Amino acid sequence: MNHYSAQYRKALLEDVVPFWMDHSVDMEVGGFYTCLDQKGHVYDTDKFMWLQARQVWTFSFLYSYVEPKKDWIEIARHGIRFLEKHGRDTAGAFYFSLNREGVPLMKPYSIFSDCFAAMAYFQFGKSTGDDHYVQEAGVILQNILRRQDQPKGLLEKSTGNRPLKDFALPMILSNLVLMLDSVMPAEDAEELINRCARSIFLDYFDEQTGLIHEYVKLNGEKEDSFNGRLINPGHILEAMWFLMDIGERNNDRALIDKCIETGLHHLEFGWDKIHGGIFYFLDARDKPMEKLEWDQKLWWVHLEALVFLSKSLKWRHDESVKGWFEKVHMYTWEHFPDPENGEWFGYLKRSGEPLSTMKGGKWKGCFHVPRGLHNCWKALEEIGW
Amino acid sequence: MNHYSAQYRKALLEDVVPFWMDHSVDMEVGGFYTCLDQKGHVYDTDKFMWLQARQVWTFSFLYSYVEPKKDWIEIARHGIRFLEKHGRDTAGAFYFSLNREGVPLMKPYSIFSDCFAAMAYFQFGKSTGDDHYVQEAGVILQNILRRQDQPKGLLEKSTGNRPLKDFALPMILSNLVLMLDSVMPAEDAEELINRCARSIFLDYFDEQTGLIHEYVKLNGEKEDSFNGRLINPGHILEAMWFLMDIGERNNDRALIDKCIETGLHHLEFGWDKIHGGIFYFLDARDKPMEKLEWDQKLWWVHLEALVFLSKSLKWRHDESVKGWFEKVHMYTWEHFPDPENGEWFGYLKRSGEPLSTMKGGKWKGCFHVPRGLHNCWKALEEIGW
Repeated sequence: MNHYSAQYRKALLEDVVPFWMDHSVDMEVGGFYTCLDQKGHVYDTDKFMWLQARQVWTFSFLYSYVEPKKDWIEIARHGIRFLEKHGRDTAGAFYFSLNREGVPLMKPYSIFSDCFAAMAYFQFGKSTGDDHYVQEAGVILQNILRRQDQPKGLLEKSTGNRPLKDFALPMILSNLVLMLDSVMPAEDAEELINRCARSIFLDYFDEQTGLIHEYVKLNGEKEDSFNGRLINPGHILEAMWFLMDIGERNNDRALIDKCIETGLHHLEFGWDKIHGGIFYFLDARDKPMEKLEWDQKLWWVHLEALVFLSKSLKWRHDESVKGWFEKVHMYTWEHFPDPENGEWFGYLKRSGEPLSTMKGGKWKGCFHVPRGLHNCWKALEEIGW
Repeated sequence: MNHYSAQYRKALLEDVVPFWMDHSVDMEVGGFYTCLDQKGHVYDTDKFMWLQARQVWTFSFLYSYVEPKKDWIEIARHGIRFLEKHGRDTAGAFYFSLNREGVPLMKPYSIFSDCFAAMAYFQFGKSTGDDHYVQEAGVILQNILRRQDQPKGLLEKSTGNRPLKDFALPMILSNLVLMLDSVMPAEDAEELINRCARSIFLDYFDEQTGLIHEYVKLNGEKEDSFNGRLINPGHILEAMWFLMDIGERNNDRALIDKCIETGLHHLEFGWDKIHGGIFYFLDARDKPMEKLEWDQKLWWVHLEALVFLSKSLKWRHDESVKGWFEKVHMYTWEHFPDPENGEWFGYLKRSGEPLSTMKGGKWKGCFHVPRGLHNCWKALEEIGW
């Protein structure tokens, strides 16, 4: 049977991966185009380091975990050469964006560029057996850890008078260190992973509401401001499966159960009871939103929800998890894929119609769709779904 | 008759101004609340310098140009005291935001904070006859002119490898200098106003499409990138009436005609043929939008359009201008006001329903609605509409 896992596998291998292979490789000057319109035609040639690095990771990962296809690793190599040649400033930080030829456009204001670069170097090194890249990933990781308290450096707009800490960094670090733990001493990795995981539930979690906030005061207190009230359900769902992976590695069933409970609570909170789908942003106290895109339905939010639910099914195969999986699965497959032209739409209006028909841009590249499809395929296969 | 001008006047004096008088004044610690929900209740207490300064300007302006009500000038005084006490960093640049008590939260990354502060100080000084504030406006203006080539200073994220210049700055400077011309030598003011006005049509205008771009290369060439293709119809319509004011001052009928023609062209380009209303952002080459809020209908866009059209009617009273005025007037009054609770909604979905029911926030305060209503009232009154 396995009809669900087959559906995810097929979409990954017959639709999404070929789409990026066919349309995104810039054979002339290196790297990847990510601004692809509905049919896959390039509409802008700027190169965003988040997406360059993520595509290297994706093709390296597919080579190791799906099939060692030469074409796949050559695409990854094509991308990492561009990163090596143009990606970093003299201090070793990754730029935010380059022009087509690799001339830096935006300074390294986002430490996530470095996080995705570390993933890319590590996975490419592992997949090719070239230890140089694995070592280099360790260097990038140390650079991230050194910068983590002041990730924006001189580009930081905040005065520091209302110091809030950001959920995104411990979340991505927990995932990164779990992935890269061979590049640092085991004890350090262990300590860092556990610290990040603990911090998410100790500091960002609100016991009263059961919600995880994007920003909290340094001592974990909740702040009554736009940022302090911000809830990003997709981000939490992504974090929950990161933590479930940590729980599985550490045989920590209590952590896994806590993640499942918390994820389901955020699905309940974030689900649009009128039009279906998961909101992009909500206010913990239901105050007016500052972010104008708050009610839109984003591809990655729904993929991360499906990964969370697929992984949850293995541990808690009850009606609640099954029901949510089917609900999110149905909404997602009805609204995001574009069978005629390939790949998935990225941005839907609240009502479910595409807000934009593009397949890639400044923030959407070859990452969440293939990673999500792969994770769901494997998790669903394991439970025979 | 004059039913249109009466409608604008009434909304200004009986709805909008009382709304801000009743709900926005923070009597305890000074300054204004701008985060007001549908009913005018404060939902967030942070203070954004754009909006603090704009409200000072609005009440000072009303005092001078509508009626010398003591209440109005006291509200302006209340606001300027807060600006004086907390507004600036040690280098004299205005912060972006403060907490309720005036502790700076966001550094002076936006030179528009300074532009609105200059307007506020100038108008408050003129309205009260206190020349200290007029002089202070001159100091702020010099500070703006000194920073204009590097407005973000160290906070600039761009590497400078793709230098684009920004339409917003010459536009606001042309308006600011026109307003403040008594604080600088007449020749300098003349030169600056004319340079800004010329630059808009020389550099930002695309002869082929008739569109004005938000960002162009330093030599005025159009750049094929997200920013380079960006069209903001509301911004252009606002600029057109700024320039028409300059044209009127300089007896430059050719400039006025050019502005009317250009404004109408942007209305045609920016009008949503399906749902009505003017889009927030468009791409000059109809490529996919990076900005997720592109299809929303914003209050200020429609008010600036109405000001442009009201002023145009005086110079070109033909069916085309009349038709556009009636179309935009009807859409605006059907969708934005909230007769039950006062003031106007700020953000509508493409379809016309409110995206948020709040009356003020981080970007919407006591400015575009009252300024727009006043401008329309006066312009329509002049033509007997």
